Amino acid sequence: MSDCIGDFRRAGHQAVDWIAGYLESVRQYPVVSRVRPGELVDALPSTAPEQGEGFAAIFEDFEKLILPAVTHWNHPGFMAYFACTGSPPAILAEMLAAALNANGILWKTSPAVTELEQVTLAWLRQWLGLPEEFFGIIFDTASVSSLHAIAAARAMVAPETREAGASPDLVLYTSEQAHSSIEKGAIALGVGQRNVRKIPVDAGFRLRPELLVEAIEQDLAAGCRPFCVVATVGTTSTTSIDPVPALADIADRYGLWLHVDAAYAGAAAILPEFRWIFDGVARAHSLVVNPHKWLFTPIDLSAFYSRRPDVLRRAFSLVPEYLRSGGDPRELNYMDYGIPLGRRFRALKLWFLMRYFGREGIRRALRAHIEWAQEFARWVDADARFERVAPAPLSVVCFRYRGSDDDNLRLLEEINASGKFFLSHTALNGRIVLRLAVGNLGTARDDVREVWEMIRQAATA
Amino acid sequence: MSDCIGDFRRAGHQAVDWIAGYLESVRQYPVVSRVRPGELVDALPSTAPEQGEGFAAIFEDFEKLILPAVTHWNHPGFMAYFACTGSPPAILAEMLAAALNANGILWKTSPAVTELEQVTLAWLRQWLGLPEEFFGIIFDTASVSSLHAIAAARAMVAPETREAGASPDLVLYTSEQAHSSIEKGAIALGVGQRNVRKIPVDAGFRLRPELLVEAIEQDLAAGCRPFCVVATVGTTSTTSIDPVPALADIADRYGLWLHVDAAYAGAAAILPEFRWIFDGVARAHSLVVNPHKWLFTPIDLSAFYSRRPDVLRRAFSLVPEYLRSGGDPRELNYMDYGIPLGRRFRALKLWFLMRYFGREGIRRALRAHIEWAQEFARWVDADARFERVAPAPLSVVCFRYRGSDDDNLRLLEEINASGKFFLSHTALNGRIVLRLAVGNLGTARDDVREVWEMIRQAATA
Repeated sequence: MSDCIGDFRRAGHQAVDWIAGYLESVRQYPVVSRVRPGELVDALPSTAPEQGEGFAAIFEDFEKLILPAVTHWNHPGFMAYFACTGSPPAILAEMLAAALNANGILWKTSPAVTELEQVTLAWLRQWLGLPEEFFGIIFDTASVSSLHAIAAARAMVAPETREAGASPDLVLYTSEQAHSSIEKGAIALGVGQRNVRKIPVDAGFRLRPELLVEAIEQDLAAGCRPFCVVATVGTTSTTSIDPVPALADIADRYGLWLHVDAAYAGAAAILPEFRWIFDGVARAHSLVVNPHKWLFTPIDLSAFYSRRPDVLRRAFSLVPEYLRSGGDPRELNYMDYGIPLGRRFRALKLWFLMRYFGREGIRRALRAHIEWAQEFARWVDADARFERVAPAPLSVVCFRYRGSDDDNLRLLEEINASGKFFLSHTALNGRIVLRLAVGNLGTARDDVREVWEMIRQAATA
Repeated sequence: MSDCIGDFRRAGHQAVDWIAGYLESVRQYPVVSRVRPGELVDALPSTAPEQGEGFAAIFEDFEKLILPAVTHWNHPGFMAYFACTGSPPAILAEMLAAALNANGILWKTSPAVTELEQVTLAWLRQWLGLPEEFFGIIFDTASVSSLHAIAAARAMVAPETREAGASPDLVLYTSEQAHSSIEKGAIALGVGQRNVRKIPVDAGFRLRPELLVEAIEQDLAAGCRPFCVVATVGTTSTTSIDPVPALADIADRYGLWLHVDAAYAGAAAILPEFRWIFDGVARAHSLVVNPHKWLFTPIDLSAFYSRRPDVLRRAFSLVPEYLRSGGDPRELNYMDYGIPLGRRFRALKLWFLMRYFGREGIRRALRAHIEWAQEFARWVDADARFERVAPAPLSVVCFRYRGSDDDNLRLLEEINASGKFFLSHTALNGRIVLRLAVGNLGTARDDVREVWEMIRQAATA
């Protein structure tokens, strides 16, 4: 082990310099990897080495083989999906977390893992303007957070499920713009795809509450049991914001669990002028916000909140003798509130970055991203060859070239082939739509300006 | 961003030195944290800072407040649960992965994430002696891997579940020594706790196949549908190894999915002299091995294999327009095979450590751990005041002081209060049992000798 530590000390310093250099010069790489499918697999040996190798050889292959196959999410030109940032303070915290290798299975297996998770999620809860009763827990991804919400919903409405298993009459409601993970979670949990109602949206891509009521009434008349409604604050395609207050009323009236998926947009609630996006959210039973989306945390860190931790416990607590412990009322064992038992020290990176940037630093960054996206939206609006196809309340703009779907896909290809920018697409009202997402800390207004120029030139050609 | 990178460069070098120093001197810390529940929560500010702070202040609090609340899993005296190691090459890889912040949602969102996962899991598959048809995918924890296995089992035996939802007549079988995550997964998926049959074990804590057949026949006679059997290779309490060949025969006969939970013990199959623990595993439908347990990978990295990726796909694939891509036959999109959509670049650490240690280096470490545990078992056997209460085929020894449960719990308290060692406990045949687990790369034979002396002295006093 001591040789190994000496090697680490040397290679670690080299890695820090490499990382700093990478972050400074990431623009020199093509943002989207240019390898062909299978190219990296073919370039690597088909078997692992018998004898150990030095860091120099490993690092050389990292640069020569791995790096060209990386699409650079930390590139300021990454404007696809939801743009994000693995920020320096959080990278530093990930180094330390890996070295400690603490695993918060139980409070006592590393109190810091549990308590720093409590503290940072309470800090974030305050920033988001949520009530104190919201209990926080970290999962890897929003898909897994939302799966927990759906399971908890079932535990509240149909508590017999734990013992007897799912019954096929439980119905979940969400909008046709909801993220696919909601439907996938429902399928995995045995709710059944046919019991997922995708309620139509209005012209702004927001769930229509009156159609939700209609669907619930129909299901009740048919003898089904509505149990859960999932609202989205910031849908994946357009960042539309469902009318949560109206949905909370409906959830109350019919006794449903209300889950709010704010994986991307939740971060914006840190801005006083955008606090409105969380109207009604205090009445939700659960909420997911992903700091690894728009809060500068490297993947993965999904923050899940619920004001019904008692129901989470009822759904998930199961304590064998080898995990029995404590009894102190302040000894929180997160394993009682979810499926994963192992618990990485993810809270450390959230703590580092909240302290390093402070609330003001975070707000400055979010405001800039929103401002530049709004500016881009105005440029699109001012150019007759383009149309904007959805409201852009936050840092994502959906637009299209006034031409065929193929024209738009070709335009997308051309931008992405430049190596300087990466945009993604979606479909709205049956047509292909381009998406520009601003969310990287390194992105500047000039980048947004430049990609717009590139888009205009591509349209001209 | 550029200020931020300069700060990172300085603080990063400091962190590397700190980590190297920590790994060299981790023995100076008490292995089990001595904080009281709530102590860290109370020591930290109740709100996050408004203005950003420098790394110096954050790092000072890390050392002063966080570190005393850490239980040191990377301490050579950590012999509780399954002892493990966050090894230096893997720590290095985690630094790089956080800096790249690549997210393998789709192949194209970072080909290296997908392809290095394919390559490293193929390497590991070869080391484990598994057939090429085993398809590998990484999840965070074994709990989540096994949940996927149970969902896939249901998709194979009751394919109507995807559309129609779970039906309450599906029955899962495992042993009474299986990990609690199997039951928890079945509950979460809507199988129902009453549909989990815990088959009794023999004197060596191995599932009794003849009782499994009896239970299946009874369920069939009662109109239930058996769908899954979960075998354990290396149970959590005693590391007992279920008779997988017999269970595979039964699974074949009744058309059940056979899942093998080898989260801890699977690593031992890398040793030719322990390859037998995987007898019959090639016939399983799925398997989980956790490199973050006994393969020197910092948490989290759970390797899930299945020879029925077609069923995983049927259970989990769901592709919205905004995630539509490619079509090249070599373009693997892991999101089609599981619940999480976001995919951290976990394979990088597996690649670093497999190369750094090589197969021989890994084998040397595993052999030493097993040898020292065996030696400890012989010392226990030779002391009339103690009894060994289970076979110890691998690196875990279950034993007890010949006295009351309270005597044993007091003895455990005393060892753990020393700050030098951390053991855990379990219950076997209704009695409290102590567990010693060897699995940290820094542990030496002298440590095992010393903890035994401490146990003997505690027994004398």
